[in-house]
Amino acid sequence: MRGYAQDKDAYLRRLRRIEGQVRGLARMVEDDTYCIDILTQVSAVTRALQAVSIGLLEDHLGHCVTQAIEAGGPEAEEKVREATDAIARLVRS
Amino acid sequence: MRGYAQDKDAYLRRLRRIEGQVRGLARMVEDDTYCIDILTQVSAVTRALQAVSIGLLEDHLGHCVTQAIEAGGPEAEEKVREATDAIARLVRS
Amino acid sequence: MRGYAQDKDAYLRRLRRIEGQVRGLARMVEDDTYCIDILTQVSAVTRALQAVSIGLLEDHLGHCVTQAIEAGGPEAEEKVREATDAIARLVRS
Amino acid sequence: MRGYAQDKDAYLRRLRRIEGQVRGLARMVEDDTYCIDILTQVSAVTRALQAVSIGLLEDHLGHCVTQAIEAGGPEAEEKVREATDAIARLVRS
Repeated sequence: MRGYAQDKDAYLRRLRRIEGQVRGLARMVEDDTYCIDILTQVSAVTRALQAVSIGLLEDHLGHCVTQAIEAGGPEAEEKVREATDAIARLVRS
Repeated sequence: MRGYAQDKDAYLRRLRRIEGQVRGLARMVEDDTYCIDILTQVSAVTRALQAVSIGLLEDHLGHCVTQAIEAGGPEAEEKVREATDAIARLVRS
Repeated sequence: MRGYAQDKDAYLRRLRRIEGQVRGLARMVEDDTYCIDILTQVSAVTRALQAVSIGLLEDHLGHCVTQAIEAGGPEAEEKVREATDAIARLVRS
Repeated sequence: MRGYAQDKDAYLRRLRRIEGQVRGLARMVEDDTYCIDILTQVSAVTRALQAVSIGLLEDHLGHCVTQAIEAGGPEAEEKVREATDAIARLVRS
């Protein structure tokens, strides 16, 4: 069971829509769409991916990390560090 | 003719690979992959999209904007502002 | 008592160094430094600020959020949501 | 003469305000301000720095890069690449 288990279908729908948006980007390149219009669309896809990340992170903190803290012991601290490392990768990407 | 015309095939290959990576993300969710591993992969896809943006922007500055400046007139200034707005959207996304 | 209490002096030192870096940026503008060199230095300051954010967030998760979860009750969930909102602001800025 | 020469005073004012905002962050830490409130303010400072970057970049494209393109020769291409590298650093920071 993962933190996102209850929202699994919603995540799958969002990822399929993002997949379609990336396919749309390829179509824009094929159709010689104006560069700036492609860039605008790439920014939209990036934001959609970030929204998925932030959702996954909230689910992760609210389930996996919460359970580790409730269980106590050294694993809780490790989970917090692991989540922080993932946040750092998101902030820097 | 667009700024990216000469690199069109390379962009199409990169976008198809990114499309495959997004499909891979959906598969990870379906397979109940650990949240943090999905997040790491989302960061990788985001970086791949940003690299496409930066390539498109370089092609755009080196062709469309350069041609507008060489042609002179008020369009040059407008192209610089339009490119700056696209950069601002990339930086903030 | 805040999550960052034990690292307070280290944060103050880092923020004073960032303050000095921003003062350095103003000096670069005053001295007519080449634009690209100023931009490189702005990126360095931005990364230093992000590192402070990520540190504060780790301290926050490891103390404030952890304590709320250990205490149980509805506040735990609220703290997770509040932290996620802060992460979303960081990712988008 | 730099691309930002005509806006020099405005940049200096903006940078002094950002310097004051960073000093305000240190004060927040000294006063044991709640972590999330400090994080919100760090995001605001990061956005203010990014706005300075984008302004400098627009001035750079509209002056230094434009002049190199108008002058023609190999330096124009080099300036476009240099600007793109600076944009890439901004996007990734």
